[in-house]
Formats: sequence, C-alpha cells, structure tokens
Amino acid sequence: MPDTASAIECRQITLAQAPSGKLQASDFALKTGPMPQAGDGEILVRVLYISIDAANRAWMQGRTYRDQVLPGTKMAGGALGEVVASNAAGFAPGDIVEGDMGWCDYVALPATQVQKRKQRGPITHLLSILGITGRTAYFGMLEIGKPQAGETVVVSAAAGAVGSVAGQLAKSRGARVVGIAGSDKKCAWLTDELGFDAAINYNSEPVMKALKRDAPNGVDVFFDNVGGDIFEGVLFRMNNRGRIVCCGAVSQYDTDTPTHGPRGVPGLIVTKRLKVEGFIVMDFQGQEQAEAELAGFAAQGHIKVAEDIVEGLENAPSALVGLLGGDNYGKRLVHVADPTS
Amino acid sequence: MPDTASAIECRQITLAQAPSGKLQASDFALKTGPMPQAGDGEILVRVLYISIDAANRAWMQGRTYRDQVLPGTKMAGGALGEVVASNAAGFAPGDIVEGDMGWCDYVALPATQVQKRKQRGPITHLLSILGITGRTAYFGMLEIGKPQAGETVVVSAAAGAVGSVAGQLAKSRGARVVGIAGSDKKCAWLTDELGFDAAINYNSEPVMKALKRDAPNGVDVFFDNVGGDIFEGVLFRMNNRGRIVCCGAVSQYDTDTPTHGPRGVPGLIVTKRLKVEGFIVMDFQGQEQAEAELAGFAAQGHIKVAEDIVEGLENAPSALVGLLGGDNYGKRLVHVADPTS
Repeated sequence: MPDTASAIECRQITLAQAPSGKLQASDFALKTGPMPQAGDGEILVRVLYISIDAANRAWMQGRTYRDQVLPGTKMAGGALGEVVASNAAGFAPGDIVEGDMGWCDYVALPATQVQKRKQRGPITHLLSILGITGRTAYFGMLEIGKPQAGETVVVSAAAGAVGSVAGQLAKSRGARVVGIAGSDKKCAWLTDELGFDAAINYNSEPVMKALKRDAPNGVDVFFDNVGGDIFEGVLFRMNNRGRIVCCGAVSQYDTDTPTHGPRGVPGLIVTKRLKVEGFIVMDFQGQEQAEAELAGFAAQGHIKVAEDIVEGLENAPSALVGLLGGDNYGKRLVHVADPTS
Repeated sequence: MPDTASAIECRQITLAQAPSGKLQASDFALKTGPMPQAGDGEILVRVLYISIDAANRAWMQGRTYRDQVLPGTKMAGGALGEVVASNAAGFAPGDIVEGDMGWCDYVALPATQVQKRKQRGPITHLLSILGITGRTAYFGMLEIGKPQAGETVVVSAAAGAVGSVAGQLAKSRGARVVGIAGSDKKCAWLTDELGFDAAINYNSEPVMKALKRDAPNGVDVFFDNVGGDIFEGVLFRMNNRGRIVCCGAVSQYDTDTPTHGPRGVPGLIVTKRLKVEGFIVMDFQGQEQAEAELAGFAAQGHIKVAEDIVEGLENAPSALVGLLGGDNYGKRLVHVADPTS
C-alpha cells in the first residue's frame, strides 16, 4: 500500500530537446509523477521560488562550471525550498534551504547539496539581493572592479538582477555610474528609480558613441554581463589601467553560433594595461559577511531591491525565454508555493 | 664659418609614407644632413645599436602608449648610444645612454629623454636581456604570469626577443614550457638550444590541436605576444584560474585591417575565471633590481641570450620588415657604430 506522500502527483519540467538557435518555451515539457522519497541522508523539499538566470541557457550549450543540462532531463535551476521531511542530521521540516533543485515542485536530494538559509527581510530577498545574483554583484564590483570615488563605472545588462545591484553598489562608493540596457523604458527606470547617473539604450545608439557623451572622462571599471558588441564598444573607451569585470556573456548564450570576439582584444588590453578578470561567486570567501552587508544596504534603502516575480511553475519556460529577450526588471523569480510557516 | 662637427654629414631614416597593408622597406627613406648640435640641457649622442621591435610597426597605426610615428618624420626607435658632447649636467662624453633616439647615426636631444646605462657583460646585452625586451619578459612572466613549479606555461612568438627570455624564465621556476613559433627550424631551436619542453609550429598545425598533445594538463599561464588565432587557440586550452599575460598583439600590427577578436572572449574568461592582463614594462618599479637579476642569470648561463644583429643603419628598414615576417631568432639589433672607449 503506497504511503500518503507518494500518492500526491508532483510536477517537473524537463528540457525536452536541445534548443536550435534561440530557446523557445516549446523546448520544454511538463511531466507529472509520484512524490519523491527522501533516502538516507536526504531531505524532501517543497520548492517555493525558482531563480531564473541567463546562465540557465549557457548550461544547455556544454559544460561550464557545472555539467551540461542534457535533453530529456529535468531542467536545472537554483531554488529556495522548505524541508518537508528529513533523513539527514541537522535538517528538520520547516527549514528554508537553497540549492539546485531544478524546475519542479518537490525534490528529494542529499542534504549536502543544499544550504540552510536564514531569513533576513522578505523571503524572496534570499534569491535576489542576498542570493547568487546579489552576491555576484557584490564580489564582482567590490572585490574585482574596486570602483573609487570619482571614477566612471559602466554596467551592461544594467536592468538585470546582477547589473541593477552592481550599479547601485558602485554608486554607494561615489562613482559615476552609466548603465547599458535594451530599451528607453529600462534606461528611464535605471536613472529615475535606481539612481544611475546615465543610461544608454544599445538598441537605439552605438555604445561607443554614446559613451563619448555619458562617460566623457573615459571608463575606469566595466562590469560586463553581455560580451559581444557591447564589450567591444566599452573596451574602446576604457582608460589606462581600467578593470573589466567579466561576469557573463549573455549575448552569446542564446544561439548556436557564437560570434567572433570583440575587436581590440588583446591589443587594447596591452596598450591600455587593462585587467580583464572572470569570476564565479562561489570562489569567494566571506559569503556570510557579504549577505549581512547586502541585507543592511537593503534595509537602510541604500539599495533598491528589484524583483520580477512570475507566477506558477508551469510558466518557468516562458519566464526564461522572456529573460533571454530582456523583458525582466531586476531579479526574475518563479513563485511555485508559499512556505507553511 | 661652420664648426668642424656640423661639416660631418649625418644620416637618418624617415618613414617616407604611411604603409599600405604590410610594411615594406620602400616605405622608408634615407636622408643626410649636417651634424646636429646639442642645445642647452642637451647631449649629442652617437648611436651604437638600434633596437628593432614589432612595436615599431604598431606606432605607425596610431597613438599607443606613445605618439604615432607620422610619415615624413624620422623613424622612432629605442637605441643605445655614446655621448660625444654634453650641455647637460651629469652627462659627459663617453657615457653610454639609452633612449628613443630614432633611426640615425647622431642625435642631439634633451638629457632628460635618455637614461644612463651601466655596462654588465657585453654592451649589446643592454638592449637585449637587460633591455626593454628582457625586462618585459621578466616583469610580465614573473609579476603577472607567476608560474609555479609543475604548471604549464605557453609562450607565443617564443623565438622572439621577449618570448625567448620569458620561456626560459618560466623554465627556471620549474614550469613545463611550450613555445609557439612559425617554423620547424625555430621550434627545434627552442627545444634544442633554449631548453623549452615542446614547441609548436603554428604554420604546420592548429595550435588548439597541438596543445592537446603538448599541454596535456591544460595551460596555466599564457604569455602572449601575438593575439589573433593563436590567442584563441590557447584560450580554449586554459585551465580554470589561468593567467593570460598580454604583452603584444603582433598579428595585428602589420595590417590596415585588424581582424575581429578571439572567440571565447569574454565567455571563457568568465567560466574559467581567467585573469587577462596587459602591461607596459615602464609601469613596474624595480627596474634596476630586474636588470641585476637578469645579468646574473645570463652570467651564470641560466638564460641563453639570443641576439640577432644586422649590420648598418641603412639596413634598419629591411631588419624591421624581416622581423615582422618572423625571420629573427631572439633580439634583433642594428649595429650602427662601435663605442670609442
């Protein structure tokens, strides 16, 4: 006789086929099955919110800092969940945990694959300002970019989850901050709501030309999420001894045919003595400290936390497709369920 | 009545016209004129050796870390000379000085534009192992690349003035060193004469493929003088947290039409967490210390000093054209005159 839990139908979303060119919602499939069971050392988790990130698309292209997401398997994705059953020491029902739970509403997984999270403010903050994207902005901007008062900082994908925080952190250090985004509406949001000094709509004017106006003293720090032509445009405006923080290359993720790299690499890196550095947030020590500091910034209003919440697991595919097309403002999350507590 | 000195005919070589495409010896002109006179605060210098560098070609393309060399003006170039007359405090006939004297056999210039050099070993060493190229290799490899024992280091333009020293310095730190050069003869020279562990002829096989064999554990440090396809090939073989030392981009100098940048920039910089850093030797403190250390390495035979000396000022144009075509082994110098002392 099946126990009660396994009688509940659970949903998960798989990558049904490898995307050809741009990702489409029809590349995914929704499947139902029995409630998973927590084995030894495992916990059963109810997924509350799923983090939607441009990197999700890069995972389909091949091995990155994690295994490739292969067709026919559950779509991977960071998520926040609540423990509903535990066979692992130190975990109890009601605990809030974060980890790669994938796109589903329940998952059983080894407790070693999740991290317990302590709530500080709204629960969604754990995936936005206090989550991987917020901490990515924190370490990338403050530890690699190191903006100084009076310097000019440019942030690409500035209206995104990482960019919106990175730009505000640079402002807090006294830098002039110029955002790059894909619409006039986003640009207005960056300057009017988030306090950026200027914003460039790359769809309406060439970045290199616009920077002549908006970064008249050149660019000291470039926090780049995009790569491609935008990287090239900013590269040509870098000042000597500038720093380029390579956080992502979203312009190259949603395609089968990555383009050639930016002109001026490596020539301008030599003549301008630039430091160009890639990083992954998990490489840094001091995650707890970063989280506490970011929570303080948010609580004091020094950083406006921008969240863009899509309702329902079944809408995760379109939420990702839309994000790759640039329709999000700040951190995009999919709301799957509410915590019981 | 003219004084004796000004009756002597002096030679200089001008850039007669902006090169169209590849540089040719016919882009230069040899001119003669009266002996220059040292004004107040100036010295009159007899040029002994001229340094021939790939960067000479880059200077014709536009402003770099120095002003562009314009058609109709004397060709610029680093050189070693002997003071023959001085109107500057602290300089006396017989002093050996280094500076941008240009392509000529006598030059009068402000003493502030030269540096006095102390001889350590053969006088040519002052422009090779102890000169800008030797110190470029020293600071780039040891301060930026920082190879550790057991790591794999790749050097492009490895048979050149900088690369031949950079590779030997990495060997001295216990790294496995793989050189990239343009002929089988150069490759044999790198492994047989200079002690490189392996060498790849980029004209006979794709670099990315060859590195699978010659750098089976991936690449930790890439010291790049070349850019372009070679940069791209090595980039794809970099290990996580690798360092790319951007020293030059010679593949892009001798052309009117610089190509697009390497694929994988900035995507692989992110996922592999690479540091890509450009530098100019003059930015570093400790030049005197570097020189002393390099002189020690040379004297003790830890570094073989490779010099490629072309006879006669009139042959400077063909010496540069040949260097851009890759016909030099080690540091190319043009011998103009011998010191009197």
